[in-house]
Amino acid sequence: MLTLFFFMTMFNKNTWIDFIHDLQNRICTALEACDGSATFVEDLWERPEGGGGKTRVISNGAVFEKGGVNTSIVHGMVSDVMRKQLQIEGHSWFACGLSLVIHPKNPFVPTTHANWRYFELYDAAGNICDCWFGGGADLTPYYLDREDAMHFHGTLKKALDPFDKALYPVLKKQCDHYFNNTHRGFEMRGIGGVFYDHVKPDVAFQQALPDTKLSLDSLFAFQQANGNCFTDAYIPIVEKHKHKPYTAENKYWQEIRRGRYVEFNLIHDRGTIFGLKTNGRTESILMSLPPTVRFDYNYQPAENSPEALLLDACQYPKDWA
Amino acid sequence: MLTLFFFMTMFNKNTWIDFIHDLQNRICTALEACDGSATFVEDLWERPEGGGGKTRVISNGAVFEKGGVNTSIVHGMVSDVMRKQLQIEGHSWFACGLSLVIHPKNPFVPTTHANWRYFELYDAAGNICDCWFGGGADLTPYYLDREDAMHFHGTLKKALDPFDKALYPVLKKQCDHYFNNTHRGFEMRGIGGVFYDHVKPDVAFQQALPDTKLSLDSLFAFQQANGNCFTDAYIPIVEKHKHKPYTAENKYWQEIRRGRYVEFNLIHDRGTIFGLKTNGRTESILMSLPPTVRFDYNYQPAENSPEALLLDACQYPKDWA
Repeated sequence: MLTLFFFMTMFNKNTWIDFIHDLQNRICTALEACDGSATFVEDLWERPEGGGGKTRVISNGAVFEKGGVNTSIVHGMVSDVMRKQLQIEGHSWFACGLSLVIHPKNPFVPTTHANWRYFELYDAAGNICDCWFGGGADLTPYYLDREDAMHFHGTLKKALDPFDKALYPVLKKQCDHYFNNTHRGFEMRGIGGVFYDHVKPDVAFQQALPDTKLSLDSLFAFQQANGNCFTDAYIPIVEKHKHKPYTAENKYWQEIRRGRYVEFNLIHDRGTIFGLKTNGRTESILMSLPPTVRFDYNYQPAENSPEALLLDACQYPKDWA
Repeated sequence: MLTLFFFMTMFNKNTWIDFIHDLQNRICTALEACDGSATFVEDLWERPEGGGGKTRVISNGAVFEKGGVNTSIVHGMVSDVMRKQLQIEGHSWFACGLSLVIHPKNPFVPTTHANWRYFELYDAAGNICDCWFGGGADLTPYYLDREDAMHFHGTLKKALDPFDKALYPVLKKQCDHYFNNTHRGFEMRGIGGVFYDHVKPDVAFQQALPDTKLSLDSLFAFQQANGNCFTDAYIPIVEKHKHKPYTAENKYWQEIRRGRYVEFNLIHDRGTIFGLKTNGRTESILMSLPPTVRFDYNYQPAENSPEALLLDACQYPKDWA
C-alpha cells in the first residue's frame, strides 16, 4: 500500500516549496518588466522558532508605488494560541506560502493581492496527520472598469473550471464575504476574485461544495493553475491603464480607498492579525499596507460620480464572469 | 441610611453628563482659539439600540489638520458579546464619555488623545449594581522636546497628586503599557501620559494601588481634575511650536509615525475594536485616524537623528514628571 501510495502521488512539501519559489521568481520578473524602472529588493529573514522567508519588495517604481511578493517556509510546535485560533489538534506543523500585494501609483491601475499556501500538521511521531491548502486572488480598483473586472474574474474562472465548474461561483462569493469591511455594513475592499481555505484532499472542497472532492495531486494542480494564471489576470489590466493621465482628485480618492484597505487588513484579516500576535515578521506582514493613505471624517463621493460607481460595486457584489 | 447616602453623595449620572458636555464645550472653544481659523462642525447621531452622541470634528485648520472632540451617552441591554469581552454581569447598562484625538498639521506639534468615561450597570429591577470610571490622556510627539514632555506629564501629575501621590506613577506606567504596538516589540505610540480603567468607588483604585480607595464623590472630583487640566497640559505645547517652520522630511516622518498610530488604534485599542464590533458609529470611532499617513517597508531613521531620538523615547519609557 505504501508503494502504491508513492506511485499514486508524487506531491510532498518539497514539491510545493519548489513551485512557490519558482512562482515568486516568475511573478517578480513579470512585474519588473511591466514597471520598466524599479526592481525588487530581497530581504532574507529567519524565524527564531523555525524557518524563515524571502521578502521581495518593490518601491517607488514608474508603475508600482509599493509592492511585495513574499514567500515563507515556517515550522514549529503547535502552541495554545494556534490550538485556539486555528482550532487544530497536533504536535507540530509546517506552512509554506506565497503572499503578494501590489499598490500601483496611478489611481486607474487597481491594487491586487494574492496568496497560495500549504499547511501540514504532524503527530508526536512526526507523521502527517492533516494537511490543507488555501489561497486566492482579488482585485481592488479605485475606478470601476467593467472590462477589467470581467477579465480578472474570467481569467480566474477559466483556471478553476477544469477542476469543477461548481468551484468558481462558490469561491467568488467566499471572496466577496471575506474581504469585507463589515464595520461599514457590507463594503468589500474591492471587487473580489476567489478565496478558499482549509481545502483537504479527498474530502468536500468547502462546506458549500459537498460534492467536489479533489485528490492531493489534483489540489496541487489546482493551486498551480491559480498561481500560474495570476500574471495573466493582472498584468494586462496594468498595461491598459499605466500611462493614463490622472488628477490630484483621482489620487485623493485612491488614498481614501487605500484607507479602507488598511482598515480591512488591520481589523479583519485573519492572516495579518494571527501573524502579528504570534511573533511573525512584522515588516513582512505589514508590507501589505499602502504607501500613502488618507482618513477623512465621513468622506462621501458625489452622487453618480465615477467614485460613487466604484463604491456601489464594492457594496453590491456583481457577477463579473 | 438612604437619606444619609443622599446627603453624602450628590453624584449621579446626570451630574456626569452635565460635566462631560460642559467640558466638550470648553475644550472645543480652547482648541478653536488656538487654531484661529477652523471651527468644529457638529454631527448629532442616534444609536438604534439606545442613546446617541455629539461628534465634533475640526478639519484643515491653520494648526489642526484633523481632530475630533466627541461625547456619547449610550445605553442598552447587556449582550453576550459584552458579557464575554467586558466580563460583566448585569441586565442593562449606561455609558457616557468624552473622547478626543487631535492631529496637528505641523510635525513639531504633538498629537494628543484623551478620554474620560463613566459606566453604570443595572440589575433586572433597574437598580445600579456596579459602576466605574476610566480615562486618561497621552501625548504623541513626532520630535522629542523634553520640556514639552515634562510639562505634559507634570500637569497631569499635579492634577492627580491631591488625590493620592501614589496615583501618578502607577497610571503613567499603565499608559506606557497600554498604548503600545506590542507587535513591534515594546514600542509606545508616543510618550504616554496616564491611563486607568474600571475604577470603582470605595475599593482599590487599581490592582497595583491596593491602598488607594476613593469615594464616588472623590472619583468624580478626580475625573474633573483630569478633564479640566487637559487644555493646560496640551495648549501651551501647541502654542510653542505651531509657527515653527518644517521641511518635507519632517512631514514625511510625521506620516510614518502616524502609521504607527493607525496600527495601534486598529490592532490593539480595545475601545476601537469593541466599538466597531458592537455596531458603534464607525465614523465617530475612526475619527481618531490621522488625516494623511505613510506605510514604508522597514523604515528606519538615521542613527542619532532627531527622528531616532523620538523612537528611542517610545521604546524606552522615561520619567518625565
